[in-house]
Amino acid sequence: METPQRRRRHDGPRPTARHPDYRQLRHPFAPQPVFSDDRVAAMHEAALAVLENHGIKVLLPEAVALYARAGARVDGDMVRLGRDIVADALALAPGSIRLHAANPARTLTLEPGALTFMAGGGAPNCTDLRRGRRPGTQADYEEQLKLVQGFDAIHYTGPTVESQDIDPALRHLAVTRAQLTLTDKVPFVYARGTAQAEDAFAMIAQARGLTDLTGDARCYTVINSNSPRQLDVPMSQGLIDFARWGQPSIVTPFCLMGAMAPITVAGALVLQHAEALAGITLAQLARAGAPVLYGSFASNVDMKSGAPAFGTPAHLQATLGAGQLARHIGLPWRSGAGSAGNSADAQAAQEAVMGLWGSMLAQSTMIVHSAGWLEGGLTFGYEKFIIDMEAVQTLAELCTRPPQGDADLALDAIAEVPPGGHFFAAAHTMARYDSAFYEPLVADLRNHGQWMDGGAPLTQDRALAVWQQRLADYRIPDACAGIDAVLAPFIERRTREGGAPPLG
Amino acid sequence: METPQRRRRHDGPRPTARHPDYRQLRHPFAPQPVFSDDRVAAMHEAALAVLENHGIKVLLPEAVALYARAGARVDGDMVRLGRDIVADALALAPGSIRLHAANPARTLTLEPGALTFMAGGGAPNCTDLRRGRRPGTQADYEEQLKLVQGFDAIHYTGPTVESQDIDPALRHLAVTRAQLTLTDKVPFVYARGTAQAEDAFAMIAQARGLTDLTGDARCYTVINSNSPRQLDVPMSQGLIDFARWGQPSIVTPFCLMGAMAPITVAGALVLQHAEALAGITLAQLARAGAPVLYGSFASNVDMKSGAPAFGTPAHLQATLGAGQLARHIGLPWRSGAGSAGNSADAQAAQEAVMGLWGSMLAQSTMIVHSAGWLEGGLTFGYEKFIIDMEAVQTLAELCTRPPQGDADLALDAIAEVPPGGHFFAAAHTMARYDSAFYEPLVADLRNHGQWMDGGAPLTQDRALAVWQQRLADYRIPDACAGIDAVLAPFIERRTREGGAPPLG
Repeated sequence: METPQRRRRHDGPRPTARHPDYRQLRHPFAPQPVFSDDRVAAMHEAALAVLENHGIKVLLPEAVALYARAGARVDGDMVRLGRDIVADALALAPGSIRLHAANPARTLTLEPGALTFMAGGGAPNCTDLRRGRRPGTQADYEEQLKLVQGFDAIHYTGPTVESQDIDPALRHLAVTRAQLTLTDKVPFVYARGTAQAEDAFAMIAQARGLTDLTGDARCYTVINSNSPRQLDVPMSQGLIDFARWGQPSIVTPFCLMGAMAPITVAGALVLQHAEALAGITLAQLARAGAPVLYGSFASNVDMKSGAPAFGTPAHLQATLGAGQLARHIGLPWRSGAGSAGNSADAQAAQEAVMGLWGSMLAQSTMIVHSAGWLEGGLTFGYEKFIIDMEAVQTLAELCTRPPQGDADLALDAIAEVPPGGHFFAAAHTMARYDSAFYEPLVADLRNHGQWMDGGAPLTQDRALAVWQQRLADYRIPDACAGIDAVLAPFIERRTREGGAPPLG
Repeated sequence: METPQRRRRHDGPRPTARHPDYRQLRHPFAPQPVFSDDRVAAMHEAALAVLENHGIKVLLPEAVALYARAGARVDGDMVRLGRDIVADALALAPGSIRLHAANPARTLTLEPGALTFMAGGGAPNCTDLRRGRRPGTQADYEEQLKLVQGFDAIHYTGPTVESQDIDPALRHLAVTRAQLTLTDKVPFVYARGTAQAEDAFAMIAQARGLTDLTGDARCYTVINSNSPRQLDVPMSQGLIDFARWGQPSIVTPFCLMGAMAPITVAGALVLQHAEALAGITLAQLARAGAPVLYGSFASNVDMKSGAPAFGTPAHLQATLGAGQLARHIGLPWRSGAGSAGNSADAQAAQEAVMGLWGSMLAQSTMIVHSAGWLEGGLTFGYEKFIIDMEAVQTLAELCTRPPQGDADLALDAIAEVPPGGHFFAAAHTMARYDSAFYEPLVADLRNHGQWMDGGAPLTQDRALAVWQQRLADYRIPDACAGIDAVLAPFIERRTREGGAPPLG
């Protein structure tokens, strides 16, 4: 078919193409409930009752002492928190968090209604069709940072894969250096002990030309409670350290319904809420007004095998309910998408898109594991990342309403094109054809014959070509210029000193 | 892991398992707008202006005469419709349609808020991994009917594939017979001329023990206008015939933005709305109060190749806008999901799920092409059907809110399980484990090692096994008993008479 774009090729270069900017997104849809308002209140009350009557086990004495000082009943490492203590903490937690990136255009305001995406994170392994599945290395991680940098719809760097080839005592230096020198997005810091966190904070401060980080949020961490009802040493320490340094913690119980959480969505949310409230409270006790995000990643296990499942009805309902609880306490919050699949095929695509939509309707502030998360988080997939980015970008596009001026009603074009004609050559089309539509990243729109002639590639095969091209196209962001030299002396010294072994 | 279900296996048969019933669904989410209310009104007004000032080309003289009798300005086959004529027609069209199935439990009420799904339809070809891609035959069609019958979340039978091995003059007899003898769902009838429609109506009446169909809606057809602004002979005839016999027409312009429709979402919707209003009006002129559904299937073409795309941002925005227009005129309506992909892989899964979610948020009454639609409708895929059914069933599950009684808060279970423990053996879990969660149809939740040991099957490979098992499990529904004998004399006679060649 002779489309305008094809015709244009004969005439000369393409006019202004479409350059969508996905760096600052707001949710386009109203949040959807799955529980009645009184049930949300009942879940909140039940969580308070759990904390008050049964308590949470806290393995870090410093954290126990903070709770005790606030009036909690402490029995060994069991901490029972009165509802007044929790209420005071919730009153202190900010409802809006300004999170500064190296590139000011990527600085985020995390508040209700804001929409941000993180790539799949925390995987020990990674996989791609060229090199196969393997334990993650620092080289893999750096590649993934370059890929993440190239997509505006991913708003943070994250711990896509673990750099298992680096000494754990030095790993945080390499990981933080890579984020600061390869990307201009908000970096992630693992909560693996005070020494590691303070090293990372020092590096971020140096990269930003500051003496220290206190004052502005410039990185983030994820705190996972050990469901049910337990906060371990590194997580408790992380909550305290990140709060004191003014850096946001995302307090995320990982509540697998029927395994580490009750089998009902409501019950799993009560447990999640209790644990999240305990963590949020600890952060506020460490420093009043510390930035914290409420976190949810509740899904079900397959009752036949005990395996975690994602993108399921229960996962989506839990996400929608978590959004209601987050709004009940007025905090920005994170949800999780992702896939249990073992390859970047139809199941994995379906699970991921389901999880993304659940998060959209739940009005999640930060959708974690949005792209690249395979095997329930055990593997970061390169092709999977590209395929999921098609979905993430589709959702990012929906944040902008379609043009709705009078000219967009196209009455002139409709009058101009006769019955049975076509709009390819209409003036209305010619004025818009190069910017009207989202351009697919990996979708193949060839017809069956052309596709067969082209070797009948699967989406995975095309995604392999896309990520390789994206890596080839990578350029170091302006904001990273000179950072390597700035950080070198600190990294050298800390390496000489032996770094900092992870807590845990 | 020793899950309750595994444990139970040693003890004896499973207790009552989960038997979800997806036959009557209501939308769980509030419809989401993409246009402001005044822009919806402006699109409606613009469509009326198009019909009034520019008109629609109508190729059937009987239809032109009906329009003329109502006061339309007629110039040859161009019909210009005053807004009063359209308003009168809209006032007559029922907002709720009771659509009777052979099995009363499958009888549908099509009205705002109702949610129904149709399988992919209208494909000339079908494909599966065992037999490859091929032109559709009656044997294929009958297999697909058996598959459709097995899924309660598909609410109609439909024209999944065209029975190309049957003489076109006899095909409607074979297709209608197959639907009436193999399924107890609402059947589909093609609008291919009065003689074919009346044959089908007679067969449905006989199968239901009636003298004729008039009075109750017992089947449905899809009327596609020829965008832009044209109603051909079979479609005009179908609108008239189905209206006179009281059977619902789904009036669906197929508006490809940038090709047969304006390139803007708003412009494509204006054209779609004008054409749909013209069709709805014709039905009401043929018989006041005739059941009609508003229809939308607007997506964009890829401006590089002219190929239709699905599951895109523009497709979803058009669906959401169409929902607003349908609610503006107060009619039940259909949307379309589906995929442009050539195989049942990640792209095809993603496009289909995106389209399904767009339809959910648009609160579509009838989501057409929900499962099995490949190559933009040129092929019905068996594995694709199974994979999409996982998504359709997930959405059907979301129509039921999670249990939210006091017991579902699981306070006893949370008290019972100590920190760091698990809920597998909790009484709360044991009482619910066998019915708590949706059981996946094709998703594989094995870990990577088990999956590799199992031959690393793709979702498609597993879907192949699922549809073969489903076919093996097929049983003729009770409501079909004896229907074959009832229909035989009529079919014999009509066959002797040469059937009825399709109009077109």
